[in-house]
Amino acid sequence: MSLIVQKFGGSSVANAERVMNVAKIVTETYAKGNDVVVVVSAQGDTTDDLIAKAEEINPNGSKREKDMLLAAGEQISISLLAMAIEKLGYPAVSLLGWQAGFETTNIHTSARIKKVDPSRIRHELDKKRIVVVAGFQGLAKTDDITTLGRGGSDTSAVAIAAAMHADLCQIYTDVEGVYTADPRKVENARKLKEISYDEMLELATLGAQVLNNRSVEMAKKYNIELEVLSSMTRASGTIVKEKTKMEKMLISGVAKDTDVARISVTGIPNEPGLAFKIFSKLSAKDINVDIILQSIGHDGKKDISFTVPKSRGAEAAEALKDYIENFDGTEILVDESVAKISIVGAGMESHAGVATKMFEALYDAQVNIQMISTSEIKVSVLINENDADKAVRAIHAKFFD
Amino acid sequence: MSLIVQKFGGSSVANAERVMNVAKIVTETYAKGNDVVVVVSAQGDTTDDLIAKAEEINPNGSKREKDMLLAAGEQISISLLAMAIEKLGYPAVSLLGWQAGFETTNIHTSARIKKVDPSRIRHELDKKRIVVVAGFQGLAKTDDITTLGRGGSDTSAVAIAAAMHADLCQIYTDVEGVYTADPRKVENARKLKEISYDEMLELATLGAQVLNNRSVEMAKKYNIELEVLSSMTRASGTIVKEKTKMEKMLISGVAKDTDVARISVTGIPNEPGLAFKIFSKLSAKDINVDIILQSIGHDGKKDISFTVPKSRGAEAAEALKDYIENFDGTEILVDESVAKISIVGAGMESHAGVATKMFEALYDAQVNIQMISTSEIKVSVLINENDADKAVRAIHAKFFD
Repeated sequence: MSLIVQKFGGSSVANAERVMNVAKIVTETYAKGNDVVVVVSAQGDTTDDLIAKAEEINPNGSKREKDMLLAAGEQISISLLAMAIEKLGYPAVSLLGWQAGFETTNIHTSARIKKVDPSRIRHELDKKRIVVVAGFQGLAKTDDITTLGRGGSDTSAVAIAAAMHADLCQIYTDVEGVYTADPRKVENARKLKEISYDEMLELATLGAQVLNNRSVEMAKKYNIELEVLSSMTRASGTIVKEKTKMEKMLISGVAKDTDVARISVTGIPNEPGLAFKIFSKLSAKDINVDIILQSIGHDGKKDISFTVPKSRGAEAAEALKDYIENFDGTEILVDESVAKISIVGAGMESHAGVATKMFEALYDAQVNIQMISTSEIKVSVLINENDADKAVRAIHAKFFD
Repeated sequence: MSLIVQKFGGSSVANAERVMNVAKIVTETYAKGNDVVVVVSAQGDTTDDLIAKAEEINPNGSKREKDMLLAAGEQISISLLAMAIEKLGYPAVSLLGWQAGFETTNIHTSARIKKVDPSRIRHELDKKRIVVVAGFQGLAKTDDITTLGRGGSDTSAVAIAAAMHADLCQIYTDVEGVYTADPRKVENARKLKEISYDEMLELATLGAQVLNNRSVEMAKKYNIELEVLSSMTRASGTIVKEKTKMEKMLISGVAKDTDVARISVTGIPNEPGLAFKIFSKLSAKDINVDIILQSIGHDGKKDISFTVPKSRGAEAAEALKDYIENFDGTEILVDESVAKISIVGAGMESHAGVATKMFEALYDAQVNIQMISTSEIKVSVLINENDADKAVRAIHAKFFD
């Protein structure tokens, strides 16, 4: 008998039929003799409806009240799923975040899990019940309801798996697993049987959007084996774990991220502290900077370029305006029509020429590279957004065909 | 400075505009220097939507899960109201039933309040916040969410008022107060300035449906002054309290209840234990019996008639079928086209002839009386449902015109 945590996202429980489908998956797992803890998100449209209601009344309501409002979403989905499990003749009990023992920081709308006390969950499992837990939510020490922010339900699932030493944590989603590239865009994209935590982290950051990053970090930290799979097809998915079997692949995937804007600041006098002054202004606004490129310009002046999330581009430029007005001839340019293409793979650590192969693919496809960034297990390039799909296909073909 | 509890029902917070209207009432009370605790029900359509979702998945889901589901309704309305108050520039905090200290029995869907620990509410009032509390819900000792059943939010409001020794508990509803008769049906119906707890209890039981009975019982027990008033018109309402000023009125109101069925069992042999045998079968099914009439029939046989809620009529007859099959010539008749008309008034205790005056009004209007029942402060008659409105108008005219 194993303890299995299964997580289902908002689209997996979007309507009555899908809730029943999830109940079938869960009860089949239970019927095999496993203890099952299910973590669910709010039904897709519920969250949207709740946000619309709040916007109509007060678009600037406090974050505490937004958390109170949104947490109602999972309360609805957990009780519906529990009733669906009861309908199939199995015992179920739904638990809210606080009932399931989620203690968080009190940073409303983006709280962090401080600890999970699984005693109530264990108590219910001992009674042979299927336990349905509200993802995404917890309770601050002040007894206020908090939510974990984007992708929080993945993190909730992994946190329970870690706290209870679960044998497996299955993340059901609307794709069948982790692919070597986006299967909707690249015909030959392959589903990976396994991927390491580090590779998954790079892929998540790079826009593959299969798993929330915090959840992978937590899985790595507590060595929880994850499986990413589809609630629709029931095919076996992709296992995420520490060490993967050698699949003799140089890279595990090609990812595209179009949520990127490039900011270029040109013609700044070459004086010490330039990077510090620029990036401290951005971090003061909580704007994350990704790829950075600094170059000597003409006449002893510097150019500096960097990428930020597309939605923060204008704000980033605005934040630097005061600073650059100190200088003559300095300009800020914002280019939102860019995309970041990355290859990820633990294999590249020990193989020379992986980056070269990527660049060659781009050259063959006549794609111009604007910026380059590398880490031990990834290579990213910034290119024109219009070339993005072509670039992904060219790189994927180079490595996988 | 006073402590005022204000309760708003589902129709008072049905949409964004009405939520803003409630926020205005609440903040005006606060701006006068009062401490304000607001108790709200779920938005009218939210509850219906949630029930529909559950029905689609499993009409027979456990009561525990139904409570979990329905409690999300107030969670939505309290956070929206708190945001509306914030929008008007006032500090607010919403609290769920358990956060507001409601401990209940664990009888799901119809839990009773065991106690209210108002320490969190007091803490928030001390911070000068308007406290918005979810009505209708609480927490059992097992840490499971419970709901209080029909009219539960009224009871929540009175329970807070009692626990905190509030100066006034205002129940905002969609009528302007308690009337001598239904103002939609009786042109000359008058709004009462005051009414006693006992009179209000009789009126509530008798279908006036202005206030939930449990809430009036609790108000009487803890001597909490209630005011029933409209959230729409802002007119002053009706005060419910222990002793009312003498208004020189014999009766305080005429009420109509059409949710009644009359069951007649005729021709039962006249033997001991008849009433016991019949009514024990009904109470085993949890069917409430109201007016009872027993008479000697012909040939030493008995007839017995009684009223039950209309929805339980068929079930009540079914429950008695086995018993009456023991006898020859015994019949069960169910008449659903009846109405109960009642007059209520503390004044009738000390005035003879009140009942006679009522019967005279009915005779003048040519309304046939089927059954009669009396208590110290009320007289009820059962008549044909088609005569109900005519009867109310005739009685009202007799006493008030």
